[in-house]
Amino acid sequence: MLNVYLSGEIHTDWRDLITAAAAGLDVTFAAPVTDHAASDDCGVAIMGAETDKFWHDNKGAKLNAIRTRNAIANADIVVVRFGDKYKQWNAAFDAGYAAALGKSLIVMHGPDHQHALKEVDAAALAVVQEPRQVVEILRYVISGQLP
Amino acid sequence: MLNVYLSGEIHTDWRDLITAAAAGLDVTFAAPVTDHAASDDCGVAIMGAETDKFWHDNKGAKLNAIRTRNAIANADIVVVRFGDKYKQWNAAFDAGYAAALGKSLIVMHGPDHQHALKEVDAAALAVVQEPRQVVEILRYVISGQLP
Amino acid sequence: MLNVYLSGEIHTDWRDLITAAAAGLDVTFAAPVTDHAASDDCGVAIMGAETDKFWHDNKGAKLNAIRTRNAIANADIVVVRFGDKYKQWNAAFDAGYAAALGKSLIVMHGPDHQHALKEVDAAALAVVQEPRQVVEILRYVISGQLP
Amino acid sequence: MLNVYLSGEIHTDWRDLITAAAAGLDVTFAAPVTDHAASDDCGVAIMGAETDKFWHDNKGAKLNAIRTRNAIANADIVVVRFGDKYKQWNAAFDAGYAAALGKSLIVMHGPDHQHALKEVDAAALAVVQEPRQVVEILRYVISGQLP
Amino acid sequence: MLNVYLSGEIHTDWRDLITAAAAGLDVTFAAPVTDHAASDDCGVAIMGAETDKFWHDNKGAKLNAIRTRNAIANADIVVVRFGDKYKQWNAAFDAGYAAALGKSLIVMHGPDHQHALKEVDAAALAVVQEPRQVVEILRYVISGQLP
Amino acid sequence: MLNVYLSGEIHTDWRDLITAAAAGLDVTFAAPVTDHAASDDCGVAIMGAETDKFWHDNKGAKLNAIRTRNAIANADIVVVRFGDKYKQWNAAFDAGYAAALGKSLIVMHGPDHQHALKEVDAAALAVVQEPRQVVEILRYVISGQLP
Amino acid sequence: MLNVYLSGEIHTDWRDLITAAAAGLDVTFAAPVTDHAASDDCGVAIMGAETDKFWHDNKGAKLNAIRTRNAIANADIVVVRFGDKYKQWNAAFDAGYAAALGKSLIVMHGPDHQHALKEVDAAALAVVQEPRQVVEILRYVISGQLP
Amino acid sequence: MLNVYLSGEIHTDWRDLITAAAAGLDVTFAAPVTDHAASDDCGVAIMGAETDKFWHDNKGAKLNAIRTRNAIANADIVVVRFGDKYKQWNAAFDAGYAAALGKSLIVMHGPDHQHALKEVDAAALAVVQEPRQVVEILRYVISGQLP
Repeated sequence: MLNVYLSGEIHTDWRDLITAAAAGLDVTFAAPVTDHAASDDCGVAIMGAETDKFWHDNKGAKLNAIRTRNAIANADIVVVRFGDKYKQWNAAFDAGYAAALGKSLIVMHGPDHQHALKEVDAAALAVVQEPRQVVEILRYVISGQLP
Repeated sequence: MLNVYLSGEIHTDWRDLITAAAAGLDVTFAAPVTDHAASDDCGVAIMGAETDKFWHDNKGAKLNAIRTRNAIANADIVVVRFGDKYKQWNAAFDAGYAAALGKSLIVMHGPDHQHALKEVDAAALAVVQEPRQVVEILRYVISGQLP
Repeated sequence: MLNVYLSGEIHTDWRDLITAAAAGLDVTFAAPVTDHAASDDCGVAIMGAETDKFWHDNKGAKLNAIRTRNAIANADIVVVRFGDKYKQWNAAFDAGYAAALGKSLIVMHGPDHQHALKEVDAAALAVVQEPRQVVEILRYVISGQLP
Repeated sequence: MLNVYLSGEIHTDWRDLITAAAAGLDVTFAAPVTDHAASDDCGVAIMGAETDKFWHDNKGAKLNAIRTRNAIANADIVVVRFGDKYKQWNAAFDAGYAAALGKSLIVMHGPDHQHALKEVDAAALAVVQEPRQVVEILRYVISGQLP
Repeated sequence: MLNVYLSGEIHTDWRDLITAAAAGLDVTFAAPVTDHAASDDCGVAIMGAETDKFWHDNKGAKLNAIRTRNAIANADIVVVRFGDKYKQWNAAFDAGYAAALGKSLIVMHGPDHQHALKEVDAAALAVVQEPRQVVEILRYVISGQLP
Repeated sequence: MLNVYLSGEIHTDWRDLITAAAAGLDVTFAAPVTDHAASDDCGVAIMGAETDKFWHDNKGAKLNAIRTRNAIANADIVVVRFGDKYKQWNAAFDAGYAAALGKSLIVMHGPDHQHALKEVDAAALAVVQEPRQVVEILRYVISGQLP
Repeated sequence: MLNVYLSGEIHTDWRDLITAAAAGLDVTFAAPVTDHAASDDCGVAIMGAETDKFWHDNKGAKLNAIRTRNAIANADIVVVRFGDKYKQWNAAFDAGYAAALGKSLIVMHGPDHQHALKEVDAAALAVVQEPRQVVEILRYVISGQLP
Repeated sequence: MLNVYLSGEIHTDWRDLITAAAAGLDVTFAAPVTDHAASDDCGVAIMGAETDKFWHDNKGAKLNAIRTRNAIANADIVVVRFGDKYKQWNAAFDAGYAAALGKSLIVMHGPDHQHALKEVDAAALAVVQEPRQVVEILRYVISGQLP
């Protein structure tokens, strides 16, 4: 059984596409909290409000780190998806974190970001553009079966 | 003696400012190759041209990784600076890589990027805005002397 | 499934409150032996009496360490609670031990101890005051659901 | 050459006594910042004021952690001294941190604290009461010479 | 239960012989993809064609590494078989990789390769010639029963 | 559930006494091959005879190491028993091996060997004389219940 | 200063070419014993003759492993050269060993071996054909200077 | 430069023979305290008398462990010598400890102990009988020069 962590962009349905297409494979998927508002406000919602935005965010980011680091530590494969919007520095941070732990890294992004992601891609064992390809990789890794 | 790796943005003189202000402190600084053209083309310049931009960049990024990973592994403190231009995913990747190795992380950026960098900041032991503050931290860590 | 170790103060019912409120969550809780007398005397009860109180305590503390270190090593999250009585140095020791192993640390204490616990809090991913908040964190980490 | 980190109580001159008595031994000592005011305020002095005492302390504790963790990581031996005043949870935290990293731990405290420190003492390779004894241990470890 | 990774030569039926003879033992076997064509072309089949043979192979080898490294990391015992054909440098690479991770290494080869494999054999806990012997070792390791 | 490895002396029934008395506890026991003849001859029986006694023994000892090292690596607690006969250097070797891996060590021996085993005892979390005491420790570690 | 281990083929003067061309760079080179006869016979020359070729080689290979593993452990960069003759399984073993330890790997070989070395190349940060290129890489990694 | 720890038997002059014969080699030797009386009584001499022999020995053994573990951790090579007298369980413990840390192990003993030391020998990279052979190994490892 493979544990796969799906890191990165949370504004498109790429995780659902992968999970659906991987039905039948012996894979367990984990992911960050993908509800943007909950993810931003979790710290103050549970541990009390902050007047300074920095600490508002700091409380939330640390709380999310409990989930994220545990999931990366337990993962056999970390998939990191970069989308078209936002800075997505947390995605690149996760990629670096996973690389340093020796996790197998799969990076997914469109051709526009190729040059900007060259260091991240260079740490990966696979670079793809589509969710379909992630599932094809998982199927091949598990069963040796090509599409 | 402290080994400090200065990761991130290569288009302003922040490394020079830190190095100059830290004169007299028992610190050794390391940095990536900051000549943008050399950094981009090093792979093909030494190992032969590629027709595909992806492999051109891949060769260079891996070659730079020899320097980068060695420097992070040897560092006691990793400073990561985020500037105003470009995606800077390699900076965030370095931050994640350093965090997973348990290195002391100092992040430097302006207030504009506060929200986008909240996960990176949450992994840091210090978040600053100016090169001067990095040197003040190094001086305090070494000697206990405040500015 | 999350493994959570509940370290620290053994004179109030905070562990019971957490365990009861976490019913239904996919969490396994571990804890030190909370019977104060048994915990103090376990060493001599099994391995023979000592005339010197230091060795009486030493035998017991080492025996308890078999349980404690195993539980921390297996934990994904370590919660450390500081109460109003006693020195509670073993709680702070557990926090340091867990931090060095890279475990996610949640610290619980009242506002009176804020300054004295600043180093422990600084190593934590969450600092709370109430058992209810620990359960809210666990629920969020597992399901993304806020209270 | 032995690297020795002197952790704990900062209100008596025990570090000076050890350093003076160890003159001539091939030992390098490190210590936390022992200027209480500087240690408390370093974070805000360098990185800006906070209105909330928790974050004032948090900034300072993290900044001190850069020094502390680096010193423990580089130490062959960690000496932790517990005195008569304050909670000293940071000392116990350092002891746990050092123990988890497999450092040789020497604990120093008076007989009053024997029972309360039993878990910390149980993780130590030596438990002493006087600075003189620490130096006798260092001399023996280096040269085999007894007092 | 033992996890055993069967690395090396993919042109004879040695894995089938071992698996069949080990029926009834509490062993789980893993192996690389043994379909030579699929193994060679998996990278381009999923991630797109390459004009340069080097990158064609590079894509495939990295994709196979996801499976291989995961399997070695999970293995209690790594068996590496050297056959009569081809360079089999990947088999020796796997042996070195497993040795550095502290895995128990069993090497299988005929007497012709004895001298050339002396460094690999020197890292092994057992050197055998026949699949039958691997199963005898597994049975002995699990049950203490000799053939 | 605790994994307990029972290392050392194989000429008395101490393992049976422990296993029987621990019935009902959530413990899984592992042990070396305790059939003396099989343990001595396993290497040559499976991998072919040797004329030199050194290599006869070397083959067997390495084969047994596959079982032993795997069991120690998987153990939460390693019990090492020293009896009255033979040199039992392999028992002391296992104790050192387990100590270096940070395993909880319980040493069992009679009072005659106290001085000779002082370094081994000093690495242990418990030193006992009787199998009954090992089971009492396991019961206490699991349930907090004293005899 | 970079520590570089030059592993692999010992029948051409590639190490001399690299060492000479790297004069002036802050690099320390290490290498295996390159006297073929000494390397083959060192075990029996020091520890006594063996009648069986397997043990003759085993003694020597283990003795050489003292040098080799120490050098790889100390290296920042491991260069592995594959030549035209012999099986060179020890070179591929070293490459796997270095890769598992996270060392930066540079592989050198001619185009003939490209397909057979694809798994080794896939673990490398640079793949080159000539000693000159290794030195160009070292110069770039140290100084950022391109040829 | 090689760091070599000389563990084991302290009643003959084998360490002196090795050190003298290794004059001129780039080796630093470390050793336990070889003054038997000092080694036995160091704990109580510095930390106070004990009425119970077990704790007398326990204090001393832990104090010696500060020296021993530090030396093994710093060693590239650990030589363990077994002599004719005493149980020497601490020597076997050191061998196991060093093996688990992946140190290169050289074992020295006479033919009488061959069978009893087979598990220790099986973990070694070299097994010798004479101090002269240890020096020959060190010379070969450093310079490639055979006797």
